[in-house]
Amino acid sequence: MFDRHRDTFAQAQEACRTRACWSPFPEMPGKYPDTEAAQARGKAAFEGQLNQPFKLDLPGVTGRTGEEVSPYTQAPLAITYPQADPDALFTAARAAMPSWAGAGIDTRIGVLMECLDRLYRDHMFEIVQAVMHTAGQSANMAYAGSGVNALDRGIEALVYAEAAMRFVTPTADWARRFGSQNIHLEKTYRLVPRGVAVCFSCASFATWNAWPSALASLATGNAVILKPHPMSVLPMAITVRVWRDVLAEAGFDPNLLTLCVDTVAEPLGKVLIKHPHCAMVDFTGSTTFGQWVEANAHPALAFTETAGCNTVVLQGADDLDAAIRSLATTMCMFSAQMCTSPQNIYLPPEVQTPGGPVPRDEVAQLLVAAVAGLVDDPKRAAMILATIQSPNTLNDLSRLAAVGRERGTVLLESRPYPHPDFPNARTATPLMLAVTPSERDLYAGECFGPASFLIACDSAEDALERATVDVSECGGLTAFVYTTDENFITRAEDAYASAGAQLTINLTGAMPLNFAAAYSDYHVTGLNGAGNATLTSLAFVASRFAIAQSRRPARAAS
Amino acid sequence: MFDRHRDTFAQAQEACRTRACWSPFPEMPGKYPDTEAAQARGKAAFEGQLNQPFKLDLPGVTGRTGEEVSPYTQAPLAITYPQADPDALFTAARAAMPSWAGAGIDTRIGVLMECLDRLYRDHMFEIVQAVMHTAGQSANMAYAGSGVNALDRGIEALVYAEAAMRFVTPTADWARRFGSQNIHLEKTYRLVPRGVAVCFSCASFATWNAWPSALASLATGNAVILKPHPMSVLPMAITVRVWRDVLAEAGFDPNLLTLCVDTVAEPLGKVLIKHPHCAMVDFTGSTTFGQWVEANAHPALAFTETAGCNTVVLQGADDLDAAIRSLATTMCMFSAQMCTSPQNIYLPPEVQTPGGPVPRDEVAQLLVAAVAGLVDDPKRAAMILATIQSPNTLNDLSRLAAVGRERGTVLLESRPYPHPDFPNARTATPLMLAVTPSERDLYAGECFGPASFLIACDSAEDALERATVDVSECGGLTAFVYTTDENFITRAEDAYASAGAQLTINLTGAMPLNFAAAYSDYHVTGLNGAGNATLTSLAFVASRFAIAQSRRPARAAS
Repeated sequence: MFDRHRDTFAQAQEACRTRACWSPFPEMPGKYPDTEAAQARGKAAFEGQLNQPFKLDLPGVTGRTGEEVSPYTQAPLAITYPQADPDALFTAARAAMPSWAGAGIDTRIGVLMECLDRLYRDHMFEIVQAVMHTAGQSANMAYAGSGVNALDRGIEALVYAEAAMRFVTPTADWARRFGSQNIHLEKTYRLVPRGVAVCFSCASFATWNAWPSALASLATGNAVILKPHPMSVLPMAITVRVWRDVLAEAGFDPNLLTLCVDTVAEPLGKVLIKHPHCAMVDFTGSTTFGQWVEANAHPALAFTETAGCNTVVLQGADDLDAAIRSLATTMCMFSAQMCTSPQNIYLPPEVQTPGGPVPRDEVAQLLVAAVAGLVDDPKRAAMILATIQSPNTLNDLSRLAAVGRERGTVLLESRPYPHPDFPNARTATPLMLAVTPSERDLYAGECFGPASFLIACDSAEDALERATVDVSECGGLTAFVYTTDENFITRAEDAYASAGAQLTINLTGAMPLNFAAAYSDYHVTGLNGAGNATLTSLAFVASRFAIAQSRRPARAAS
Repeated sequence: MFDRHRDTFAQAQEACRTRACWSPFPEMPGKYPDTEAAQARGKAAFEGQLNQPFKLDLPGVTGRTGEEVSPYTQAPLAITYPQADPDALFTAARAAMPSWAGAGIDTRIGVLMECLDRLYRDHMFEIVQAVMHTAGQSANMAYAGSGVNALDRGIEALVYAEAAMRFVTPTADWARRFGSQNIHLEKTYRLVPRGVAVCFSCASFATWNAWPSALASLATGNAVILKPHPMSVLPMAITVRVWRDVLAEAGFDPNLLTLCVDTVAEPLGKVLIKHPHCAMVDFTGSTTFGQWVEANAHPALAFTETAGCNTVVLQGADDLDAAIRSLATTMCMFSAQMCTSPQNIYLPPEVQTPGGPVPRDEVAQLLVAAVAGLVDDPKRAAMILATIQSPNTLNDLSRLAAVGRERGTVLLESRPYPHPDFPNARTATPLMLAVTPSERDLYAGECFGPASFLIACDSAEDALERATVDVSECGGLTAFVYTTDENFITRAEDAYASAGAQLTINLTGAMPLNFAAAYSDYHVTGLNGAGNATLTSLAFVASRFAIAQSRRPARAAS
């Protein structure tokens, strides 16, 4: 299988080296080969799975469960998944590892490239439908963000895993004099997988983190137990079924990848993490649980990606309208249910523009108008906002609006909007609050969903200072600065690098501000509370295997 | 400084790639340039420091302390070291970091290569004396193991750190179409050091782990607080003084490297580890504290190397006498006070040789005789056994001998031997016990010092099984197998790779069995309780820095 994917893999390696733009996949669903037929097949495959048991062989099945509710219809998907006994999953995973670990790097990379390719060729629009009706993403985002971009992040993880493994020579010829004697040894270095990895996926964006995380573990010879959020199982269940098929076709034990489904009422996450055979944990989800994982996974290694407050500092703009448009669009995208969505906007008293300074209130009104304009038309709202994944988010929004009215100013109320295709869709337009830094407890942390804060600061320097302190103390993945001052850029780069947020400067136009390109954009620095694992750095892969050596007197005449 | 060391560094890179034998340093003290004069200067430098305050500038000094006692004279060194307030050390370390982090990879590597070179050129025999009179090593081991081999491990760490950092391109040119619009971005990727590292060094072998650990942190832009064992401060104090001078000469803040001296009665280790600004911990020392570090260092990263039971399995030998000689020598070396010393010898009822099977009791007697023969002559004993670092080790040996008499057979009693040059030296010949697996609690863990167990097993397979289970469950760094059966080698390689001990097979002759060559032999797998950090893998360096990116619309016409 490696030969089949050799060229693509080589291109991916080059992309990771240069971090220039590259992808083997078309970004738009319309450019997918024979797209209409493929989309119809994907929809049919999805619908054929509703209201019945999901077909998946797993070891140690003890029952079935399924709690998913489509954010688009607010009706249960009524799919039941096999529930497996954790002990049985670990036992099966460990039994599956030796032949996989012994198979060699090329074989594993080839099989895993085939896993990704199989998803792309045969299941892309089935995944799209599954993501829509669990996470609530729009069809376009489900295809791009949860589909091909996630496949790209998967290939990227394979590139890094391969590079880290290749860094270890398999053999060495070693000779030295000790006193009057020559000692000549042959040495072999074996890559030993760390063990069974438990990979959590989150409710709102399951594939984008789970695919690269699971592949990083598998590529380095480990087995993986996938633990999806109970409200967002289907994308992972399809993944597990497809990859198990590919593994089996390639002659390996499919129990290298299993699924552990739990329920909201009876979560199994801690049971899996504290299992004596859990060697690694990849976690994407809430900051609270992520920090528990980091502190308690030991002796398992923990790789986390959680959340924080993503910050915007608006010192000035060459084209303020364009900056406002970009900000508004990105704040609305998928109702800000992305870990990269901007939330806190730090505003000085005046924003500098070529036409002179613009007062803060005016800037705020421009931003409010831009957001309101984007979501007024239900059809456009549906494309950008999509739906709200969890009913909890609506409750949180209501509570925040009430507090915001008391302690600040509600600049824009959140309300449901009527989805043109799904009349029962769970929707909410953005809530925008104006506050002062004395209300910091309101915004010092992630408010999941479409809520943002316009924070009145004393100056642009004060804005930058407050923003980066908040990132350091409360976590943060992305940051956005608009400025007309090159020195301010330098200071912002320094401050955000220390705080550990990935910075985008003065970006306007069609690209979503928080778009993170595989092979190019590093995701999460590990320098603040928003997670400790970077997609994709060597550190993300290099500790997933160990190096065991054997040495003996040389046998050859060499 | 990088230019001065470029050729050496390039050769080290090549050695790490091939893992063939290489070192820029002569292994024997007699081959050191103008060795007699250098040794005399080193001895004078050491003696000039006795009985007085150690000259070292540090921030936040609050007092002085010093508790070292020479294992050779059992007299206090009476050197007092400045004690610094931990808060002041962290504050100074953090202040020193920005210019160092901003200096670039070549600059840092050059300065740190100079640090190692300076130790070699101007302080090697001062280090030798300091190691002898704190750790109690022989002069030859202090020169080789704690001197040039440790310098080699330092260079090796620099090679890996440099490779991990070079893996991140500093800039990228990225362009993509979004809809009808071209987005063209310039991206910069900055390596951000993780923060202040606390580097512990152990009493018996301070330099070999601490130099590479500290250098891995420094190379990646961090600052380091060195925390030596209070009974073994001098080698680290000299290191800190020399490296601070080099850093300052190169124009950097010497507080990048400081020393934190504590006392046995009032240890500061946990204070340093739980300090809010502690970002990384490198720990070498006891398994108990090492496991506490692993479990409690969070949010700091933990890199540990502790101990375990190093195992020997004797299935057979082409030349049994030669195998016995090698085992006996290695068991005696530095009174088995090395984390790589063999301790547990698993014996089948018969050991296979070309002349027929040899009964276990006979093999045991051969080994006892070989050990006894090595230590009978005080002059040879002094060269091999050297001294006992800690009085606690003598107490442990007495207790173990008493228990061993009750629960097994004492094959060889431990006794002091008269050191020919140091009549007051703290010495002990090896204690050898014969036991059955029912006494496993005696040997399931490290018995620090010259104690070994001959364990009666049912068969060679039983011996291999017990040995590798003990490694898995109790930790273990090295393993030694002698066999005449190629299939047994294959099974041993598999079993020890899973258990995570670095295996040496059928080695006889002049090389100490547990000799670990920098650039070639990986030290610690991380797969069992003997530590989680490998000298040197990418995982040892790759998480010591983070990657912060900044992207903005491209300015050039490119």
